[in-house]
Amino acid sequence: MAGIIQPKVLKGFRDFLPGTEIPRRKLIRALEDHFTSYGYVPIDTPVLEYAEILLSKGGGETDRQTYRFTDHGGRDVALRFDLTVPFARYVAAHRNEITMPFKRYHVGKVWRGENTQRGRYREFIQCDFDIVGTDSAGADLEIMLMIAAGLRAIGAGDTRIRFSHRGLFNLLLDKLGLEGKTAEVLRIVDKVGKIGADEVRRLLSEFAEPEGTETLLDFITPAGDNRKTLEKMTRLAGGSSIGSAAVSEIPAAKRIRIILDAVEDLQLQHGLVLDPSIARGLDYYTGIVFETFLDDMPDLGSVCSGGRYDNLTGVFMKEPVSGVGASIGLDRLMAGLEELGRIDNAASSTDILILMLDEGLLANYQRYAHQLRQDGLAVEVYPVVKKFGPQFKYAESKDIPLALIVGTDEAEAGTVNLKDLRTRESFEDLSFDDARQKARELLADS
Amino acid sequence: MAGIIQPKVLKGFRDFLPGTEIPRRKLIRALEDHFTSYGYVPIDTPVLEYAEILLSKGGGETDRQTYRFTDHGGRDVALRFDLTVPFARYVAAHRNEITMPFKRYHVGKVWRGENTQRGRYREFIQCDFDIVGTDSAGADLEIMLMIAAGLRAIGAGDTRIRFSHRGLFNLLLDKLGLEGKTAEVLRIVDKVGKIGADEVRRLLSEFAEPEGTETLLDFITPAGDNRKTLEKMTRLAGGSSIGSAAVSEIPAAKRIRIILDAVEDLQLQHGLVLDPSIARGLDYYTGIVFETFLDDMPDLGSVCSGGRYDNLTGVFMKEPVSGVGASIGLDRLMAGLEELGRIDNAASSTDILILMLDEGLLANYQRYAHQLRQDGLAVEVYPVVKKFGPQFKYAESKDIPLALIVGTDEAEAGTVNLKDLRTRESFEDLSFDDARQKARELLADS
Repeated sequence: MAGIIQPKVLKGFRDFLPGTEIPRRKLIRALEDHFTSYGYVPIDTPVLEYAEILLSKGGGETDRQTYRFTDHGGRDVALRFDLTVPFARYVAAHRNEITMPFKRYHVGKVWRGENTQRGRYREFIQCDFDIVGTDSAGADLEIMLMIAAGLRAIGAGDTRIRFSHRGLFNLLLDKLGLEGKTAEVLRIVDKVGKIGADEVRRLLSEFAEPEGTETLLDFITPAGDNRKTLEKMTRLAGGSSIGSAAVSEIPAAKRIRIILDAVEDLQLQHGLVLDPSIARGLDYYTGIVFETFLDDMPDLGSVCSGGRYDNLTGVFMKEPVSGVGASIGLDRLMAGLEELGRIDNAASSTDILILMLDEGLLANYQRYAHQLRQDGLAVEVYPVVKKFGPQFKYAESKDIPLALIVGTDEAEAGTVNLKDLRTRESFEDLSFDDARQKARELLADS
Repeated sequence: MAGIIQPKVLKGFRDFLPGTEIPRRKLIRALEDHFTSYGYVPIDTPVLEYAEILLSKGGGETDRQTYRFTDHGGRDVALRFDLTVPFARYVAAHRNEITMPFKRYHVGKVWRGENTQRGRYREFIQCDFDIVGTDSAGADLEIMLMIAAGLRAIGAGDTRIRFSHRGLFNLLLDKLGLEGKTAEVLRIVDKVGKIGADEVRRLLSEFAEPEGTETLLDFITPAGDNRKTLEKMTRLAGGSSIGSAAVSEIPAAKRIRIILDAVEDLQLQHGLVLDPSIARGLDYYTGIVFETFLDDMPDLGSVCSGGRYDNLTGVFMKEPVSGVGASIGLDRLMAGLEELGRIDNAASSTDILILMLDEGLLANYQRYAHQLRQDGLAVEVYPVVKKFGPQFKYAESKDIPLALIVGTDEAEAGTVNLKDLRTRESFEDLSFDDARQKARELLADS
């Protein structure tokens, strides 16, 4: 035999031990249940696609980070780097098989050869949900309500969704003669939270006249409340020549107003805040854009972002498809929940360990386990005859609360012993039915 | 903009529409719940690994089929082609962090550049469960019981697990002087179900003397029942010089006997059949081996196979780790369940569609939806104002049974209408609480 191969994973990739994988799977399930309760349906797409398709939108950083290679058949292929481009392809490919409006969710791994020194992973899970095939305030609102309710459902507590509208921002840039510089301006504005107004002013002054720079800075600064912010955004973007009546004629302003009406009616003003400094990248979003912060840990950064795009499928078909969607950063969210102490790191979900004391009683042990499972309990049989010590140690390492103990004597007497491993209390010489009842009680108490 | 890119997937890869993905996710969840109820814990490993690790066991076909390339950092990497090699690496890497015996399950995609003309896919889901760190009859039995119970739990009905033991087979080959030809003989024996005894005899005669060939053929033919089959296997493998008392001294025979004792005690003789023609590949299994067939569709082939191996981690660490495990072929299983009519192909899980008749009522619609979800119902709000026709058509396409209808008049009157879309029965001018009660009744009836 050749030498030993070191069992290491690639840089930026991770193994998940049960203590982490159990809560991760619970989190994903809770999100899937949440999406399902809103009528969203799951889809799946291949992990590997034609590179031409995945990289069809272009973009230097994406191109550099994508795992791309030539397959056995000489095809130029790549691992998906997000779930959005595959979804666009999917909608175009199956447009005659899916009903619009289409509400779907997709949870899956994506890969990016990022610099791991920034604490980024090269393999991570994205969790996307979108409504495509309609452009409506109802869809915009629903996606944002789903974020808030979903994060609450998984124990992340209250959230603040900061949202804006790219339509108003674009109007302002037009007015300032900066429509050709949208990408650069957005990139600078996006940093205001990090670098401060003065630095943003300095950077903007490279593109805009001093007056324009001040207008931009004024625009991205929220006013006292959502209504006042909308009023200011509309005034600056629409120009002072627009009267308050005409303001409602601007589609983007009207869209925000409808959303704000519903938000107030639902008394969610705290959680849905109009914040014109939310800009998000360039070549994609065309309507509302949003980021989501946990009230209990705002410094974690946005755990769910997204917005409206008016032409998802542009490169794949002629008819434009508008949609609105959000993506949850599962890794960042889990890190936050972990830090907040809201992740249950139990090493297993097992309720009862049945000790193996006599190989001749194999059938008995499996029969007891089968019956206890019919009560909805998770029950395991220790797989080999050993002394009590190692079997109890095993139970401890898996956080198993109860043990069912049946040796040769008990089997002959038709009795069983039950032990609560948390309190070390023993219940001996019970009938199996009494032990079953006792186990239910002990587990219900905890 | 450049021309339209055709939105196609790679050959051998598949998109999953909701009608297929919903039952697939349900199936996976049911299996995960099943594993959990037996105390098995989930793990995860990277999709991409060092090629040296994945291909450490060697093997021409695997090497050829593996997606392998050089990454940005010049590393020789590959997509996993099964979940076994990554598990071996995982156990070696984390041997100080996991408790033995270790019961784990892993559901994940794997990739093989197979010839798609044989109806194989290049991306498919494997579903593995193993007990490692012990070599016991209890573990062997449990894995087989789990297969039967798991397949019953997901609606596949009764099964027949055909199992054998490589230890007895190897003894026979030693006796016939064929120990150097194990691979070739196993490969031929494996085909007996397909090509028949005569063709197997012809192929075996290229390696074995005529007498040896007849002994091999006799060995792989089951006798009248499990006990008689074990007796014949032991006699042929152990030699006629072994008396019936000494037969129990052969470890492999003893292991099977213990398993048969438990199987009879549990009255599962129909489902667990000792079949010495079950051989399975060479360089991996060392103890029991098994394949699983659906009683309702035996021609589907084995939907779950596996066995015991005595050195999982051989290439990664010095101490050997024994284990027993099984792998469910999810695609084949789903195809079988589909053909048996046991897959529920509902286009969604939504119970109630709330029609959108007035954008000014957005908050009302979302409030009703929120309250109905608290009853455990899946409720969606149609995302945009449209006429009744398209909204009912949407409900129909998603198999949604009920609609809640609230227009401007109803909102003013404080009433709602409920419609059963299956019977077209309407319930009008109800209070919301009455509608909520009525909805529960209508859904409970179905």
